Amino acid sequence: MNRGNTLKSGRKEPERVILTMKKIFLIVLDGLGDRPNVELQGRTALQAAYRPNLNRLVKDGQCGIMHPVSPGYRTGSDTSHLSLLGYDPEKFYTGRGPFEAMGLGMTVLGGDVAFRANFGTVDTNGVVTDRRAGRITSGTDKLAEALSFSVDGVDFFVRAGVEHRAALVMRGKDLMDRITDSDPHEPGLRVQEVKPLDEKAKFTADVLNKYLALARKKLADHPLNAKRIKEGKEPANELLIRGAGQAPSLTPFSELYGMKAACISGIPMITGICRLIGMNSIAVEGATGRLDSDFRAKFEAAYRTLNDYDFLIMNIKATDVAGHDGDPIAKRDAIQRIDAAMKDIGKILQDTVVCVTGDHSTPCAMKDHSGDPLPILFNSSGIRKDRAKLFDEISCTYGTYNINSGDVMKVLLQLSDRAEKYGA
Amino acid sequence: MNRGNTLKSGRKEPERVILTMKKIFLIVLDGLGDRPNVELQGRTALQAAYRPNLNRLVKDGQCGIMHPVSPGYRTGSDTSHLSLLGYDPEKFYTGRGPFEAMGLGMTVLGGDVAFRANFGTVDTNGVVTDRRAGRITSGTDKLAEALSFSVDGVDFFVRAGVEHRAALVMRGKDLMDRITDSDPHEPGLRVQEVKPLDEKAKFTADVLNKYLALARKKLADHPLNAKRIKEGKEPANELLIRGAGQAPSLTPFSELYGMKAACISGIPMITGICRLIGMNSIAVEGATGRLDSDFRAKFEAAYRTLNDYDFLIMNIKATDVAGHDGDPIAKRDAIQRIDAAMKDIGKILQDTVVCVTGDHSTPCAMKDHSGDPLPILFNSSGIRKDRAKLFDEISCTYGTYNINSGDVMKVLLQLSDRAEKYGA
Repeated sequence: MNRGNTLKSGRKEPERVILTMKKIFLIVLDGLGDRPNVELQGRTALQAAYRPNLNRLVKDGQCGIMHPVSPGYRTGSDTSHLSLLGYDPEKFYTGRGPFEAMGLGMTVLGGDVAFRANFGTVDTNGVVTDRRAGRITSGTDKLAEALSFSVDGVDFFVRAGVEHRAALVMRGKDLMDRITDSDPHEPGLRVQEVKPLDEKAKFTADVLNKYLALARKKLADHPLNAKRIKEGKEPANELLIRGAGQAPSLTPFSELYGMKAACISGIPMITGICRLIGMNSIAVEGATGRLDSDFRAKFEAAYRTLNDYDFLIMNIKATDVAGHDGDPIAKRDAIQRIDAAMKDIGKILQDTVVCVTGDHSTPCAMKDHSGDPLPILFNSSGIRKDRAKLFDEISCTYGTYNINSGDVMKVLLQLSDRAEKYGA
Repeated sequence: MNRGNTLKSGRKEPERVILTMKKIFLIVLDGLGDRPNVELQGRTALQAAYRPNLNRLVKDGQCGIMHPVSPGYRTGSDTSHLSLLGYDPEKFYTGRGPFEAMGLGMTVLGGDVAFRANFGTVDTNGVVTDRRAGRITSGTDKLAEALSFSVDGVDFFVRAGVEHRAALVMRGKDLMDRITDSDPHEPGLRVQEVKPLDEKAKFTADVLNKYLALARKKLADHPLNAKRIKEGKEPANELLIRGAGQAPSLTPFSELYGMKAACISGIPMITGICRLIGMNSIAVEGATGRLDSDFRAKFEAAYRTLNDYDFLIMNIKATDVAGHDGDPIAKRDAIQRIDAAMKDIGKILQDTVVCVTGDHSTPCAMKDHSGDPLPILFNSSGIRKDRAKLFDEISCTYGTYNINSGDVMKVLLQLSDRAEKYGA
């Protein structure tokens, strides 16, 4: 690039910054979007929060409105994050099985078949008497351990969740998720034999039935169940499985975008998705995925990580937790603490494109996800500044963008001067 | 239509203008979009320009933000113009070959197979010693002429570009672009035989190999090369071809939209695209496709053309040239001169919908295309006026639209009262 040359017009060409590809830091405040809260005088948690750092990023940068997947979609964190990262969930989301398993911190690889599972109670005739084994509260981790073994070259992994909940992952060759559940979904019915719904799924069904028979025996013989029976409790003597889903084989993120990528996430499911696309997961001491998370530690870890990586996605779960709790004050306060924790973000804007948004809205008044769109901001040196001054669901309508989550990576690539030219 | 009837309310129904279909004038300021420039106190070239006529069109009309193809796409002029005219480049863009050929002013018809080409130097063993024939600067037009002939019913056309560059167009029956390059892409390697990548491309590969052998002989015997060898220069004794692309067979514009259409363009590639869809190209004396173009002459020619046509697209290249030069002052000044040249545009607004936008952004700070969106304005008598007052990348976010380039023709058809009703 020429520097300070004299132009034909006789004027001196100004020196300019040599454009190099920038890094990208995508900050996802989980469940960020809100609806008006009576407790906050009709404001959203974000509108009510003292958020000088977020506002400064908007004032000196660009913003807009972002719809998860597309307008009106009420998404989960799984589908939203896939979409935000440029993996169309309509193509790649294969049901809750693999994503619930990731949510329990299990490793799920492309091709694995995964299930949601319950520890249940079955009588001697194979009839389910309690789908939740008396809402068992402890020891399921030991049971899960006992149920992790191999059959006919297929590895089975079980991990316990909250109470009676668990997940099962099958890993091996020629697996397919077109099979029925063993869970009859109602007490009083017999445990079902797993049946293939496709010729090619016969092996999967066969090996799974074999596994479940062996698992039944291990559960019957397990000392925890002997103890429970002695105590007059329902034994957890059956692993009821449902919702088979095969983890998609996704093009690794690094290959798709030519960037070395990492994630920082307090939520196992998001870590799982990021690992599924080949990202490294960076552990942060003090990050809990809850309201008490050490946001400052997360941002400091992020800045360090960006020294070694081109792309970093960081999920902060606290906003979603407060939304599900229906607590607008807690949500506002979480945003205030997140904002305070990002006070030094200005120091990376010279060579990094920072984007802040959410994966979906979790309005406190709803205590669940909604399909309301989210504010999104982009900031970096040299990019356009638009009219918006504040970071919230309404002010960001003054901005440049009205996009879907599937557009975000493209906008980030172009703002970081990484987009390939389409045409000449 | 009823005129002056008495309504049930007793009021007299006002007389109304009978709606007639309007004409459409689409003005594409090439590479219009910009990013903040230090030299312009952080403004874009458009923000910094004195542009009373463009501003008046916004103030009395509608505007918005337009993303080439879709948000984040960093497009070329070829893909952008196809999209703006309603031809989805994802379907119809067949690689650079045909568009580079059009860029050299060659006629390219649907079904033609076109290539980017170099005049190179090859030794007696067929090994490429210089892919650029010593960066030959003159005489290649004579060589191109000698290489334009027919073989087995297929017509070959060669046109010289800048220095060693050229393009080759094949026209005939049963051609197909699924073939390999003859260019080995590295010096020190032999010229490659062209091979079919598809059974149906065998004829194309065969006739092309035959042509290249004949072309080799013509170049070896050409007096220009004898002269170059005598002068100790590298002979241009091989036409190295690459990037075969088959020009798409596009539905003619007139058929697609029911409008008689013309283009005014200083850039051969855009003229080529417009011709490919059956538009007439209107030559304008003094229009150069450069910064010194006679913009007044272009607008005067445009108004005259609109007497005879329903649709006119006019491309002004100067803004893009200044962007590629990295010269924000020149870009601002070009916009000022374009604005001044359109001082009489008000006179056509009664029966014409005027639209001003760009095909892509060419930020001066980047000296290349970016994926930043563009301002777009629409004006005509009787249409809504929205909140925006100024024509630039930021002010137009006050407007009505946040659209993709593929939406523009639809908006134009509806504003010109030409859109067919979808439903009843």
